[in-house]
Amino acid sequence: MTSESVSTDPGRFEPVTPPDEGIRAQAEARQLQLTKPAGSLGRLETLACWAAACQGVCPPAPFARARVVVFAGDHGVARTGVSAYPPEVTAQMVANFVGGGAAVNALANRAGAGVRVVDLSVDGDTDPSVSAFKIRRSSGAIDREDALTHEETLKAIEAGRSIADSEIDSGADLLIAGDMGIGNTTPATVLIAALTDTEPVAAVGRGTGVDDAGWIRKTAAIRDALRRARPVVRDTVALLRTVSGADLAAMAGFLAQASARRTPVILDGVVVTAAAMVAEELAPGARAWWLAGHRSTEPAHTIALKHLQLDPLLELDMRLGEGSGAVTALPILQAAVATLAEMATFAEAGVSTRDAEDGSETRTDSGTGTDSAADTAG
Amino acid sequence: MTSESVSTDPGRFEPVTPPDEGIRAQAEARQLQLTKPAGSLGRLETLACWAAACQGVCPPAPFARARVVVFAGDHGVARTGVSAYPPEVTAQMVANFVGGGAAVNALANRAGAGVRVVDLSVDGDTDPSVSAFKIRRSSGAIDREDALTHEETLKAIEAGRSIADSEIDSGADLLIAGDMGIGNTTPATVLIAALTDTEPVAAVGRGTGVDDAGWIRKTAAIRDALRRARPVVRDTVALLRTVSGADLAAMAGFLAQASARRTPVILDGVVVTAAAMVAEELAPGARAWWLAGHRSTEPAHTIALKHLQLDPLLELDMRLGEGSGAVTALPILQAAVATLAEMATFAEAGVSTRDAEDGSETRTDSGTGTDSAADTAG
Repeated sequence: MTSESVSTDPGRFEPVTPPDEGIRAQAEARQLQLTKPAGSLGRLETLACWAAACQGVCPPAPFARARVVVFAGDHGVARTGVSAYPPEVTAQMVANFVGGGAAVNALANRAGAGVRVVDLSVDGDTDPSVSAFKIRRSSGAIDREDALTHEETLKAIEAGRSIADSEIDSGADLLIAGDMGIGNTTPATVLIAALTDTEPVAAVGRGTGVDDAGWIRKTAAIRDALRRARPVVRDTVALLRTVSGADLAAMAGFLAQASARRTPVILDGVVVTAAAMVAEELAPGARAWWLAGHRSTEPAHTIALKHLQLDPLLELDMRLGEGSGAVTALPILQAAVATLAEMATFAEAGVSTRDAEDGSETRTDSGTGTDSAADTAG
Repeated sequence: MTSESVSTDPGRFEPVTPPDEGIRAQAEARQLQLTKPAGSLGRLETLACWAAACQGVCPPAPFARARVVVFAGDHGVARTGVSAYPPEVTAQMVANFVGGGAAVNALANRAGAGVRVVDLSVDGDTDPSVSAFKIRRSSGAIDREDALTHEETLKAIEAGRSIADSEIDSGADLLIAGDMGIGNTTPATVLIAALTDTEPVAAVGRGTGVDDAGWIRKTAAIRDALRRARPVVRDTVALLRTVSGADLAAMAGFLAQASARRTPVILDGVVVTAAAMVAEELAPGARAWWLAGHRSTEPAHTIALKHLQLDPLLELDMRLGEGSGAVTALPILQAAVATLAEMATFAEAGVSTRDAEDGSETRTDSGTGTDSAADTAG
């Protein structure tokens, strides 16, 4: 990819318009007509209304083409021992995604979603089918050098934008970003801590399972990277250049563009949610198009979710990445949509409502009095 | 059903044998071989191992014939205004289940489960297709009279046992009990409070949404019923006779028999979990076969789950009943099974493990040192 192929300002996105509030109101009104006590499906009701607002139609349709895009990249900081795994695992796992053997493959198959993996910055050669958007091999060690050049940062954002466009143009009606990269919770934690002004020790987690000595190295790396990040925290592209990586920058572009294209997204764990915080900076309002699929065990994830004011759907102590938590949440969203789309109304089913004034279907004994003549004899 | 058709002691079940611990150990060992950090799928891993242990095979298979049985019955106590809805809604909703218009129908369709509704004690005529096990019309007003006679209690337990048998004999590999009955959270709360020695005010919830005055009436009814329950709390059949209902007694028999038949169950909300507490009394050890699908908003549900030492999978503020929360959890269980069954192992995928001593697939640089020669240049 040459610099000519980069648009004049890849950091700037079309303004994000919110999901359709008129349709959301229709969906909320429909919920009250369905054969259940008002609000009794809890979170499923608000989810279904959100889906309808995103689709711009009530009742909503099942999501027919949900797509997971796994953004793969290595990180120079992994060489300082911040992860439980050696860096070559990133390239090996890319091959595993292509072969269909990873967790996200199994989960996506079950949920009826497709999986695509894209190598942005794996430190090794990957299959040509996944390397078309490759920016570089690995990203800089952010505790002491920039992750990317300015040009690479713009290219990576643009890559994410292009990937979102190609998926949406191919009919995707729901997108999920996943991550794969040994060491990637380190830049993710730095981004979250920088954007929320959080101390490193409050944000640093175990990633895929680093030991105590590794955790200390990771915390030190995050502290050093944060020191480098703070001067540029108000300049989103510079922040990505300084302390992210090509994978994270592309993810941010992908998430911003999905919202600009009015396509809902289920967010995954700490890495994707770090990118989502950046995407909200690139495209304010983008978060209205996002559902937080789950809460991972990483402390920084909770900090990021709170910052984005997103309440995660699942809490299953997952900490894998790959989009696995988001894909696990997908059937819950589909279930919510099914209730709003398929349930009978009180009128259709001839079921009495709680309020005798609701309409002709309603019996006159409201059940809150004691004068019912119902016979309970056996 | 005549008394001759009741077995000599319907309150006694075959001893419950636990899920296969040898298979569970195999499944746990397999989890460590799959291409993910150990434990990184969190609750999905323990769920999948439980499924394998229940099925007696590792890797487990997807549940191919999950069945929801909705136990419908009215309750005399509803005439005292403990519910937001009039009692005739129970019969109307039975017709709605048969017609496929209820929430549980939509959710079960989406999750690939079948739905059957059984009228145990609806206070009205229902379709012959659902009334074969009918014990009586409604159950007694438990704040001042027994719910059932001793004979009816035994018949109801036996009905639940027969329903479980027929489902399992027809190939069901996973069962879900649901409830439908205006006023049924009142006997459920009484059962839970009696078996856990809880004060009424700590256990009483809003059910489907009763108002303040109704909540006061409900609390008074629960207090009066608890006074009647306490003398018989150690005699399970007598407890059911005194303060349950034919629907709850049948559900208890159903859940006990499912465990005796080594068939896993996803529990739903407060009504089903009240019956589950009784089933655990009828068939000790039954709870090893149960997954708590969700936590409802009813305070007594949390008390019951704690008593059974079950940790709910979902917390979505649902409070509908019908089995809706359990069916919503089913895709998560299926997702867990899919990961254990379909993921590649480290060896199959050629992915390095974290521990260099794990085997020949492993590279020698463990990633926890700083001596890696990996090149991160872009």
